[in-house]
Amino acid sequence: QAPSPPTTTSCRCPQVNKSISSLKPFEKLDVVLPSSLCPRPEIIGIVKDTKEQVCLNPDTPTMKVVLKAIRRTR
Amino acid sequence: QAPSPPTTTSCRCPQVNKSISSLKPFEKLDVVLPSSLCPRPEIIGIVKDTKEQVCLNPDTPTMKVVLKAIRRTR
Repeated sequence: QAPSPPTTTSCRCPQVNKSISSLKPFEKLDVVLPSSLCPRPEIIGIVKDTKEQVCLNPDTPTMKVVLKAIRRTR
Repeated sequence: QAPSPPTTTSCRCPQVNKSISSLKPFEKLDVVLPSSLCPRPEIIGIVKDTKEQVCLNPDTPTMKVVLKAIRRTR
């Protein structure tokens, strides 16, 4: 599920791709922190070469660790 | 230290800002995974409102946890 273009009051990832378990295909991860635009964190993977953007599931064990670590310093 | 524009064989963060400890000013973190372009992971914070890009230190405890979690699924 590709992220939708940011509008004034919406999240970029209305849905997340729950089937992706490995981050191997990705060259970059955008970790979008909660804001007035979107109250929940979003993680968007940018696929190598194709640059396709994929909304990743923030509830996987890995992402929970990532977000927890980030939250601790905000 | 702002990231330099990506060239064929260079990293975006020749230097990192070692003084930043809180991630509060940031709306998004770009976690650039190691690649042929740049053998080391890079973390670029995008500052709220100004959209300024800041190269963050990947060796802080938080970033080490983030990168370790990501490495586990690659």
